[in-house]
Amino acid sequence: MSRTTSHHPIPSAEVLYRRLLDHVRGWLAQAPQPVHLVGIASGGVWLAQRLQADLGLPGAAGVVSSVMHRDDFAQRGLANSAHTQLAFDVNGAHVLLLDDVLYTGRTIRAVLNELFDHGRPASVALMVLVDRAGRELPVQAEWAAERLSLPADQSLELACDDAGQLSFAVHRLASTQ
Amino acid sequence: MSRTTSHHPIPSAEVLYRRLLDHVRGWLAQAPQPVHLVGIASGGVWLAQRLQADLGLPGAAGVVSSVMHRDDFAQRGLANSAHTQLAFDVNGAHVLLLDDVLYTGRTIRAVLNELFDHGRPASVALMVLVDRAGRELPVQAEWAAERLSLPADQSLELACDDAGQLSFAVHRLASTQ
Repeated sequence: MSRTTSHHPIPSAEVLYRRLLDHVRGWLAQAPQPVHLVGIASGGVWLAQRLQADLGLPGAAGVVSSVMHRDDFAQRGLANSAHTQLAFDVNGAHVLLLDDVLYTGRTIRAVLNELFDHGRPASVALMVLVDRAGRELPVQAEWAAERLSLPADQSLELACDDAGQLSFAVHRLASTQ
Repeated sequence: MSRTTSHHPIPSAEVLYRRLLDHVRGWLAQAPQPVHLVGIASGGVWLAQRLQADLGLPGAAGVVSSVMHRDDFAQRGLANSAHTQLAFDVNGAHVLLLDDVLYTGRTIRAVLNELFDHGRPASVALMVLVDRAGRELPVQAEWAAERLSLPADQSLELACDDAGQLSFAVHRLASTQ
């Protein structure tokens, strides 16, 4: 794909969230119970917390951070990191992981290792707002609200305003990896 | 699915191997070079070694063992384990992982961690003979020669005879996990 300055359509995060809510509601109805919602910091946490409220689930959604297991930890360090918060026993648990964008799969590998540091889950499923082409590891989401392809020099990130409204921001990276 | 004694059709491993060979040949022609074939012990190693020969690739196929990173290491221990052998620099490498059967995804998580212990690959793709339903982690193969569903109390394993002929063996497990 050529790296032009053409604009790619940015999906509406609110529209995708409503699709996610509908899908998770149906999926939970036939999943082994209980399922624990866990959001990947930071975009996935907003999704998990909002789903937890909109679905009327008890307690707080979990938070999982990839930062301690990322393969580029040496470059990124601990700046701006959220801390993992799991108020349930991960051993034997059914976990629904939520994230805003699935891209290379490296975050998911890191997050699985973070989860497994806390125990051996019975199952971990992943759902995302956007499945962005460009996978570098054999990782896949169970479901994505939208699939799209973006140039490698663009990053796609979920933002959340003070009123809790979700939107996607596209940033141009200074250099591609 | 009821656990009856009905026989599920066991795929011909030789037929599936030829499909795999054809697919890998085409895939390699458009993949970033060089690609290193790495077999997951033990079934995947036979596949990787045979592909390496049939495709006329230089050197030996790599071997990766999941045993040191498995989440049931305490139960399994080190018995019957193969050792990881990677005769290339994993840093920046493009790796094609081969395995006989993809099932829960736990072996793949373990194998990725074993690979990452040796370096940070640029990409890891997974191809398998059989994608068996029953995933417990968000792991997926780039390609599978066949997809099928088996009762949870049956295990499917590749065997290799003295003449190098591949076949699948189905075993009934004493108890399901």
